[in-house]
Amino acid sequence: MALPTYIDDFESWKKEFRVSYPVTVRFSETDAFGHLNNTVAFIYFENSRTNFFKESGLMQEWVSGKGEHIPVTADLQCDFLRQIYFDDKLDVYIKVTHIGRSSLELHYMVNNENGETCLVGRGRIVQVNRMTGKSSPWSDEAINKLKKGLFIQEKMQ
Amino acid sequence: MALPTYIDDFESWKKEFRVSYPVTVRFSETDAFGHLNNTVAFIYFENSRTNFFKESGLMQEWVSGKGEHIPVTADLQCDFLRQIYFDDKLDVYIKVTHIGRSSLELHYMVNNENGETCLVGRGRIVQVNRMTGKSSPWSDEAINKLKKGLFIQEKMQ
Amino acid sequence: MALPTYIDDFESWKKEFRVSYPVTVRFSETDAFGHLNNTVAFIYFENSRTNFFKESGLMQEWVSGKGEHIPVTADLQCDFLRQIYFDDKLDVYIKVTHIGRSSLELHYMVNNENGETCLVGRGRIVQVNRMTGKSSPWSDEAINKLKKGLFIQEKMQ
Amino acid sequence: MALPTYIDDFESWKKEFRVSYPVTVRFSETDAFGHLNNTVAFIYFENSRTNFFKESGLMQEWVSGKGEHIPVTADLQCDFLRQIYFDDKLDVYIKVTHIGRSSLELHYMVNNENGETCLVGRGRIVQVNRMTGKSSPWSDEAINKLKKGLFIQEKMQ
Repeated sequence: MALPTYIDDFESWKKEFRVSYPVTVRFSETDAFGHLNNTVAFIYFENSRTNFFKESGLMQEWVSGKGEHIPVTADLQCDFLRQIYFDDKLDVYIKVTHIGRSSLELHYMVNNENGETCLVGRGRIVQVNRMTGKSSPWSDEAINKLKKGLFIQEKMQ
Repeated sequence: MALPTYIDDFESWKKEFRVSYPVTVRFSETDAFGHLNNTVAFIYFENSRTNFFKESGLMQEWVSGKGEHIPVTADLQCDFLRQIYFDDKLDVYIKVTHIGRSSLELHYMVNNENGETCLVGRGRIVQVNRMTGKSSPWSDEAINKLKKGLFIQEKMQ
Repeated sequence: MALPTYIDDFESWKKEFRVSYPVTVRFSETDAFGHLNNTVAFIYFENSRTNFFKESGLMQEWVSGKGEHIPVTADLQCDFLRQIYFDDKLDVYIKVTHIGRSSLELHYMVNNENGETCLVGRGRIVQVNRMTGKSSPWSDEAINKLKKGLFIQEKMQ
Repeated sequence: MALPTYIDDFESWKKEFRVSYPVTVRFSETDAFGHLNNTVAFIYFENSRTNFFKESGLMQEWVSGKGEHIPVTADLQCDFLRQIYFDDKLDVYIKVTHIGRSSLELHYMVNNENGETCLVGRGRIVQVNRMTGKSSPWSDEAINKLKKGLFIQEKMQ
């Protein structure tokens, strides 16, 4: 496979993932070509992202409807390496590769039961002010939570 | 076909629909059995419902995030009469069959390009207070809007 | 609550469920009213149904793309008793209430972590010939599998 | 805006689009942050893609279930420039930027009613053999259809 530009060395890139969330392919997620519809890859990415944010303690304010900030998706990409089918048991890995002033770069890897990588991807989210929509820097507390989230993940291994 | 209990006479039931919204089946809405996934019927129902509420002038307050009320689904049902496939051009009909104190009974009919009825259905929505979740009676203004919505629909014929 | 017509006595109806499949509400399944979008209830129903069919040994032929038959949805209904939110941990219960000549009546119950019932529902599926779309009677083998599926479920308790 | 790497000059990139398909944001496509859920961008991309393939005459064999080939998604990416809300009327533009041996590079642009660009993206699809999953070169007929598709689009202006 020709590596996507966001992966330098596939083996070392793989090794940096420390946490994953399981998902089993639903029948409603297949399409008339008999496999997983391509658009569902991004649902799996989002699901691992919100799980990571929840464990990091950031999701709670964002979904409360009362906080000042929400995260918005700045960009997303996915490379489809291997077809996925109904009932496949997948592990959706996520890692933080960069913490910016108000943004976060996240990488994704989706493996099947045989440990074969089916999807790889990346994307950036930006924290914005709920009212103005303008980017809003991470507080020290949020950065601590993000780092603690990463740390909790290490302990989970 | 054995009629669902909510339809007394199919021909007269059909004739009472006065408004419909078009929808074309997306590929992502099919499943590995090669036809429209059953769960999408309810997306089409909701789409006709929000279109009707928008034209009636009720949707604006509900989606503003500022109003006191939101509508919640109390129940839904669908009878699948005929298979639907990718790229089928459908008309999703909707009619109000009963205005309750804080609720609304709506009926649905989905026809294909040949005028064949593929789906029929019904459901009840209830207006609730956004904070307490308790049912909240329609205001006179809302009832007027609902009736005006029905009236606008007649003019559209 | 006013009981739906398909439930005679709620407590005894509840007790007849013997198997359930867990699901956690995804963020992409919420809507701008801040709760689970109503259409997702039927995705949860389908997911429990395909899990049940898989454990019963019927799903394998249906999804192989080679078998003579597929199941189609004849009707579906859902009563929404309690609002559901992002990250709620749900148990989706399913039971067979009637095995017809070529059809199957299934009932559903969705409980949250507190054991509160949020959704109840029912629906009928019909086995049809993949080519003709005409209903096709269950084979003795399929009926045995369905009954064995129910039996396996009992053992799972 | 910092341009994605697949756009050299935004104004000339925009001008090369010749065809678009309209879509109105459904309520079920919003999420609890009150806007369009990020995963839906790829549903809009797929919808414009299948419309283009249909008009080009390629989709018919792929969805017939009888042909030798299907298209699979090789990669996809999307940059989110502007938030999108319930009921927004969008135009989803698509253009072919490269025809490979068995692949196709497609670019996407989604504008709102004010002509503001909300989403840009790109992706590659590959034609594969339905049975083996191996890439399968475009036939001369398919290339002619693709070019004719582009030509038809010019005439549509």
